[in-house]
Amino acid sequence: MSLTDQVAAAIDSKTKPRGSLGDLESLAARLCAIQQTLTPRLVKPTIAVFAADHGLAREPVSAYPRQVTAQMAVNVLHGGAGINVFARQHRIEVLLVDAGVDWPGQPPAGLINHSMGPGTASSLTGPAMSLAVAEQCLTAGAAVADENVDPGCTVLGFGELGIGNTSAASLIVSALTGLSLVDCVGPGTGLTGAGLARKLDLLQQVQRRHGRPATAMATLASFGGFEIAQMCGAMRQAWELGQVLLIDGFVATAALLVIWADQPAILNQAIFCHQSGEPGHAGVLSYLGVKPLLSLGMRLGEGSGCAVAYPILTSAVSFLTDMASFEQAGVSTGEPESPAP
Amino acid sequence: MSLTDQVAAAIDSKTKPRGSLGDLESLAARLCAIQQTLTPRLVKPTIAVFAADHGLAREPVSAYPRQVTAQMAVNVLHGGAGINVFARQHRIEVLLVDAGVDWPGQPPAGLINHSMGPGTASSLTGPAMSLAVAEQCLTAGAAVADENVDPGCTVLGFGELGIGNTSAASLIVSALTGLSLVDCVGPGTGLTGAGLARKLDLLQQVQRRHGRPATAMATLASFGGFEIAQMCGAMRQAWELGQVLLIDGFVATAALLVIWADQPAILNQAIFCHQSGEPGHAGVLSYLGVKPLLSLGMRLGEGSGCAVAYPILTSAVSFLTDMASFEQAGVSTGEPESPAP
Repeated sequence: MSLTDQVAAAIDSKTKPRGSLGDLESLAARLCAIQQTLTPRLVKPTIAVFAADHGLAREPVSAYPRQVTAQMAVNVLHGGAGINVFARQHRIEVLLVDAGVDWPGQPPAGLINHSMGPGTASSLTGPAMSLAVAEQCLTAGAAVADENVDPGCTVLGFGELGIGNTSAASLIVSALTGLSLVDCVGPGTGLTGAGLARKLDLLQQVQRRHGRPATAMATLASFGGFEIAQMCGAMRQAWELGQVLLIDGFVATAALLVIWADQPAILNQAIFCHQSGEPGHAGVLSYLGVKPLLSLGMRLGEGSGCAVAYPILTSAVSFLTDMASFEQAGVSTGEPESPAP
Repeated sequence: MSLTDQVAAAIDSKTKPRGSLGDLESLAARLCAIQQTLTPRLVKPTIAVFAADHGLAREPVSAYPRQVTAQMAVNVLHGGAGINVFARQHRIEVLLVDAGVDWPGQPPAGLINHSMGPGTASSLTGPAMSLAVAEQCLTAGAAVADENVDPGCTVLGFGELGIGNTSAASLIVSALTGLSLVDCVGPGTGLTGAGLARKLDLLQQVQRRHGRPATAMATLASFGGFEIAQMCGAMRQAWELGQVLLIDGFVATAALLVIWADQPAILNQAIFCHQSGEPGHAGVLSYLGVKPLLSLGMRLGEGSGCAVAYPILTSAVSFLTDMASFEQAGVSTGEPESPAP
C-alpha cells in the first residue's frame, strides 16, 4: 500500500465520520507526504523575519514613514511586536534578518546581519537591485535556513518587515501572474482614497518603465526588495531541506511565487497560513489554486499569520497521532445496518 | 471616555497599522465588552459536551447506527475522541453530560448524570418531549453551568454527541428562521445520494406533522433532543454568569437560536467558532448576521470547533495585553509626513 493510501486509511480509522475533520484531514495528509511518514512531527517551529528598506518608499507609497522599518525591527528584537506575542503563545522561535535596513545609526545587536545596504534603489528610476545582487540575496537567505535555523527544525515560517514592500510585492505578483496592478495594489499599512490612488499611479509608472521582465529573477531584481529576495532564498533552501514552509501573507506569497516560477514543486511543501486583508492576496492564492487556513482579515506581515495559524497544524498532527481508532474504542463504523426485515 | 472608546484607543496604540489585525481586533473588543474590562482574561476554559439519543434516529436519518452515541460517549470519557485531543492541546477542560443516552447496560462512570431517559420520542409520531420535560432540560443544563463548571471559568464552550441530532437541529433551524428544510438538511455523519434524499423526505414528513410550533420552547420540545435542550439551558446560564460562550457547529447554533429567539442579547456573548461543513450552518450564521472564526469544513461536533478555534481567542487577548504601544516602542505613528517642499 502506498504511503498516501496508508495515510488515508489511518485518517479514516479514527473515531469520526469520514471527512468530518475537513481541512485538518487534508492538512494532516500533506504533512505526512512532506515528511514521508505516518507520524509527522512539528519540531522547533521557527519564523524567520526578513527586514529591509525600499528605495521606492521615498515616494508616497505608504501611510508610514520609511524609518518605521528600522523602528519596527528594534521592536521585534525587544519582543514587543505582534509576531513576538503570537510566537511566544505557541513557543515558536523568531529570527530577525537584516536584509538591508536603512539604520539611522549603528544596527542593534541580536539580528542576523545579511545587509545588502541601506535599502534598494528606487524601481521608479531603474532596477531595485542588479541581477547579481538578487542572486547574492538568494544565497544569503539560503544561509539563514542552513546556519541560523536549528537543524532539528521541521517547520519554518517566513515573515517580513519593510515600509514599501506591498508595492514591491504588487509589482512582482502582477508581472508573474499577469494580474492587473489594479487588482494587486492595496492599502498596505493603511492608504485609502487619494493616497491609494497615488500609490497605484506610481506603481503603474514603475510597471511601464520595466515592462514585463523576462524571468522571475529579473522580476525580483527589478522590483525588489532585499527582504523579499532573501526570503526567496530561504524558502528554496527550506524546501530542499524537506521542511514544512509556512507562508504568511501577500508579500511572503510574492516571494514564493518567484521560486515557484522555476520550481513549481515547492508548492507541495507550502502551507498558506492565512488570506491577507490586502486585496491582491486573494487573486494570487486563487492563481496558485491554494486555500489558506485562516481568513481573519489580518494584514500585519512579520509572519504573524504563520504564528496565529500554527496551532491548526498542531491540531492536524494531534488528531492523527492521538485520536482513538474505531477498533481501539469499540465504536461501530458507518456501514449502514441491514434494514430490519 | 466610554469603555468602547478606551478599548479602541488601546487597540490603535499597538505597534501595527490600524486595523491590521483584522478580526483579532474585533474579537478583542468583544471580549473586553463581555468582561467590561481593558484586560480580558480567559480562565479555566471548559467545554461541556451534552450527549443524548433521538427517537427519530430509529428511522434512517444517519449513516451510523443509534448505539454509536453511547459508544462515542465512552470514547470521550476515555480521552480518545477528537474533542479530547484538541482540548488537551489547548488545556481545555472537557465535561460530558448524559442528557439522555440509550445505554446498552449501566452508564459508565465519569459523566454528569442528567439523563431524561433513553432518548427522546420520535418526532415522526409526536413531540420529541413534552414542554414540561423541555423546561426540566433547561434547568438541568443551567445546573451544569452552575455546579459542574469551575466557578472561575470565564469561557465556556458547548458541544454535543447524538446520532440523529443534525435532523433535530435542521427542524429547529427551519422552524425558527423560516429557512427551507432543503437548505437546512445535510449529510450529518455522512449521508449522500439516496440516503440524504430519504433523510430530507423523513424530515419533511416530521415538519408537516408539527407545522410551525408557536414558540421557541415548543419548537425545542417538538423536535428535541435532550442534549440540545440541556445545551440551551447551559448557554442561557453561562450568559447570565457573564461568561464568553463558544458556539461550535450546526447543532450548537440551533440550541443558541432557541434561547436567542426570546433573549437576543445572548448574541453579544457568543463567539461562533467555526462554520460547519454541514451545509445548513452557513444559512443560520448568515440569518444571525455573524461571522465565524474558522472555516475548515469540519463537521464533527463534540465541541471540536470550539477547541480548534480557542487559540484564536488567546491570540486576541495576547496582542491586546502584550504588544508594545507606539509610545513604548518609540515607533513613528502613521500620520503622513509633511510633503517635501
